[in-house]
Amino acid sequence: MKPAHVDYRVYLVTDRPLCLGRDLLDIVRQAVHAGVGLVQLREKQASTRAFVELGRSVRAITSKASIPLLINDRIDVALAVGADGVHIGQSDMPFADARKILGPDKIVGLSIDTWEQLLQANQLDLDYLGIGPVFPTTTKTDTSGEWGIAGITRARAASVHTLVGIGGITKDNAGQVIGAGAHGIAVVSAICSAPSPARAVKDLRTAVEQGRRSYQTRL
Amino acid sequence: MKPAHVDYRVYLVTDRPLCLGRDLLDIVRQAVHAGVGLVQLREKQASTRAFVELGRSVRAITSKASIPLLINDRIDVALAVGADGVHIGQSDMPFADARKILGPDKIVGLSIDTWEQLLQANQLDLDYLGIGPVFPTTTKTDTSGEWGIAGITRARAASVHTLVGIGGITKDNAGQVIGAGAHGIAVVSAICSAPSPARAVKDLRTAVEQGRRSYQTRL
Repeated sequence: MKPAHVDYRVYLVTDRPLCLGRDLLDIVRQAVHAGVGLVQLREKQASTRAFVELGRSVRAITSKASIPLLINDRIDVALAVGADGVHIGQSDMPFADARKILGPDKIVGLSIDTWEQLLQANQLDLDYLGIGPVFPTTTKTDTSGEWGIAGITRARAASVHTLVGIGGITKDNAGQVIGAGAHGIAVVSAICSAPSPARAVKDLRTAVEQGRRSYQTRL
Repeated sequence: MKPAHVDYRVYLVTDRPLCLGRDLLDIVRQAVHAGVGLVQLREKQASTRAFVELGRSVRAITSKASIPLLINDRIDVALAVGADGVHIGQSDMPFADARKILGPDKIVGLSIDTWEQLLQANQLDLDYLGIGPVFPTTTKTDTSGEWGIAGITRARAASVHTLVGIGGITKDNAGQVIGAGAHGIAVVSAICSAPSPARAVKDLRTAVEQGRRSYQTRL
């Protein structure tokens, strides 16, 4: 079953190279204990077997904390490890195929990076949109332009979906992104590369709460 | 449902670089019309979306010819395109996970390259074993040693499964491989790189038939 409530406020997306040689599982564990609401395991180079094995290890951490685990792109890995769903991008499985294979009880999130994709997504039975890059980022290089804070405000007005901003988000700008209307922020390097992943999560949570108050005040 | 009978005698495994710049779909079409019994689509570099799109195109060809299509490694792609099953290697999804996800009605083939793996596979509910490399090959470089003709004879005696030889097989040695006890041969470059893929399939079929007579004579 799909979790009754998913907390998208501070959402960890993993990236092994950005862990700077530290153990990915250890960073996930710290981040989960410090309060991320959701983890997406992203492995672009691993063999299927290695991805499944790593997925099972991360699953053990997220299950214990009762938070959902999503797998980037790979529905086969998600099924094998019993993940709560997948996150797919524009060059991954077409959304309709992903939903058909996984059924209504799994979370399916979709990355969009253009206004056209944002509007098209209003027709899709998806759980959330990853909208990015919000700011310039070196993590993803296959996107065009940035949304910026004003873009997030327009996106919130135009989209029917839960919006998770991604790309270049840090504790210093997370509040603005939420204040502009994003429901959550997804971060890679701000947690994976942080000297203290736990501290980073706490700072991001604080920034997000400030952003939520700012958004509600303006309503 | 799983096909009632699968013809493993001449089995095409695709490899886009080995098509030498020619259209993969055109080569598959020629090979299918000339009589391969099974096609495995193998794409190690494509995005999931490109793999699914290519898989649908190959599926149209194999469906028309009423022969099975297997997908290399990617169960997600197999599910999306409605393939008949998957072929997995030792660094792909663990066999037990693959069978669990796909269920009993899909074909699951497994690559083995050691004697230990051959014996362990006797306990698995798989449809066939890909045993290789039979001969030296440049297509796969992550294996150790070759089975040779004598190895195939020993494998046939020790395995409970349908055996498909792979690795360095050409029309000149295909008969020996079948004569030694393999139920079929899987080829990559002998078809994908052939000046005439259709001619190559016909020559392989002739060699396989000679090998079958030789094997039956010795029984």
